[in-house]
Amino acid sequence: MDDSKDDIGAAIERRFGAAIAKIADAEGPAAWPRTWRDLAVRGSCRTFQQRKVAPELVETLCALALTSPSKSDLQQRDIVIVDDRQIRAALDGLLATGPLAQNWIPSAPVLLVFCANNRRQRQLHGWRDQPFANDHLDAFFNAAVDASFALSAFVIAAEAAGLGCAPISAIRNHAAKVADLLALPDYVFPVAGLGLGWPTRQPRISLRLPLAATLHRNRFDDTHIKEIVDAYDRRRHAAQPIQTQRDIERFGAADFYGWSEDKVRQYADPERADWGAFVRSKGFRLE
Amino acid sequence: MDDSKDDIGAAIERRFGAAIAKIADAEGPAAWPRTWRDLAVRGSCRTFQQRKVAPELVETLCALALTSPSKSDLQQRDIVIVDDRQIRAALDGLLATGPLAQNWIPSAPVLLVFCANNRRQRQLHGWRDQPFANDHLDAFFNAAVDASFALSAFVIAAEAAGLGCAPISAIRNHAAKVADLLALPDYVFPVAGLGLGWPTRQPRISLRLPLAATLHRNRFDDTHIKEIVDAYDRRRHAAQPIQTQRDIERFGAADFYGWSEDKVRQYADPERADWGAFVRSKGFRLE
Repeated sequence: MDDSKDDIGAAIERRFGAAIAKIADAEGPAAWPRTWRDLAVRGSCRTFQQRKVAPELVETLCALALTSPSKSDLQQRDIVIVDDRQIRAALDGLLATGPLAQNWIPSAPVLLVFCANNRRQRQLHGWRDQPFANDHLDAFFNAAVDASFALSAFVIAAEAAGLGCAPISAIRNHAAKVADLLALPDYVFPVAGLGLGWPTRQPRISLRLPLAATLHRNRFDDTHIKEIVDAYDRRRHAAQPIQTQRDIERFGAADFYGWSEDKVRQYADPERADWGAFVRSKGFRLE
Repeated sequence: MDDSKDDIGAAIERRFGAAIAKIADAEGPAAWPRTWRDLAVRGSCRTFQQRKVAPELVETLCALALTSPSKSDLQQRDIVIVDDRQIRAALDGLLATGPLAQNWIPSAPVLLVFCANNRRQRQLHGWRDQPFANDHLDAFFNAAVDASFALSAFVIAAEAAGLGCAPISAIRNHAAKVADLLALPDYVFPVAGLGLGWPTRQPRISLRLPLAATLHRNRFDDTHIKEIVDAYDRRRHAAQPIQTQRDIERFGAADFYGWSEDKVRQYADPERADWGAFVRSKGFRLE
């Protein structure tokens, strides 16, 4: 057993709360691929060195991200690099102020926006005067999934080079304004932003629900989900307690404030209730 | 410049039809991360050795996939490993027969289904008797994005170990039957399947639209998209011609049959027009 196997095993046990049956022996070109180790210890990063990220590094990572799978080879995703000072400042203003403020965003040296693009496909049909016969939920869905594949691959490529990043779904809290700033036309919409830079420290391994909750064999089974979540709440609280309780005025101060309590308080208030209206305003029918 | 830099540069140039300005020098822990090289040359795999994939290897990859980012730490994705013979045969029957048949699927040693799960979040609210105030499009969207992040990370982890795989969005062509077979409850839905195994050969580098089409600076701009797609069609045709024209009876036999012609013919017919009805049948409101 070499060091990376130990690293992977320890990180998985820490993250999921239990060792998995056996860390598999890789049998391919790389025994204990470095990629596995990077994934095992990965985490989002929201504090950055002031050091710049070279534009060619960002472009390289975008290309690598766009090698990810794409539904039916349709390639329905685009990436917008935001490096204009005024546009960046406007986006920072939207994201870093208000009740859902994320104060770290203005300090990210690079800001990208991953977009779903169903416009190109419709253009192809227009050029050939053929109907686009898929004006329903799946057209919207496919493009969103394509963009998500690319974002996930970007994160892995960036972290492999020692960069740190964090997705910004809050960009959808301001979808119409973001679309105006980035000149997104009909049938193009932002899926998530991504803040990127050189990290100031190793990321924290964010503890995950155990595989007993999220991995199923043949048939979905959440018979014991309440007990599993209770144990997860306790495990997380012991390792990474949540420092600030949400909205004590409304919910009171909880004696024990775990992950699930935090998530319930977050989603007891509407978030992005206007997302559907925005998507429809961009031309999509969601039937 | 070491070998991997050459590999990455050549693969990017081949895939996107142009060298990028400069393959960035990685400055992090690994100069020329192996992950970059794996991404640069990656491709989907649909032909497999008969050799088994060890169950512990599949479990390791699932754990690594679930280290990927998750919207607001909600972890709204699950993975179903299908290894029951009868259920697998039933899924194969759905996917490998009919007009949209994908004949390779029964030969994949492993079949996984990546699911979006918004059920768990709603359960948390039920246990605490707090309203889930987000019964709109975003609840559906967040879970789909979470599942897509995990699938993309799984692909990269698997390929790093020398495995081959291909996503199967066609699982959504049969969403209601798949949900029955896998016992998916309300608020859980399949995003994509994934066929996995040891490949018989190196994957083909699937040529991509050039970054001139898919990478934007500050403002979305597709002014020259028609010329770009025309050139891409020709480039792809020269390197990877499409062997079979779709539906010649309806569209005629094209003298030049490129990527865009193929995609238009594919989407001139409805595909998954019932996806929205399925999603709503699982309880989602998409307003």
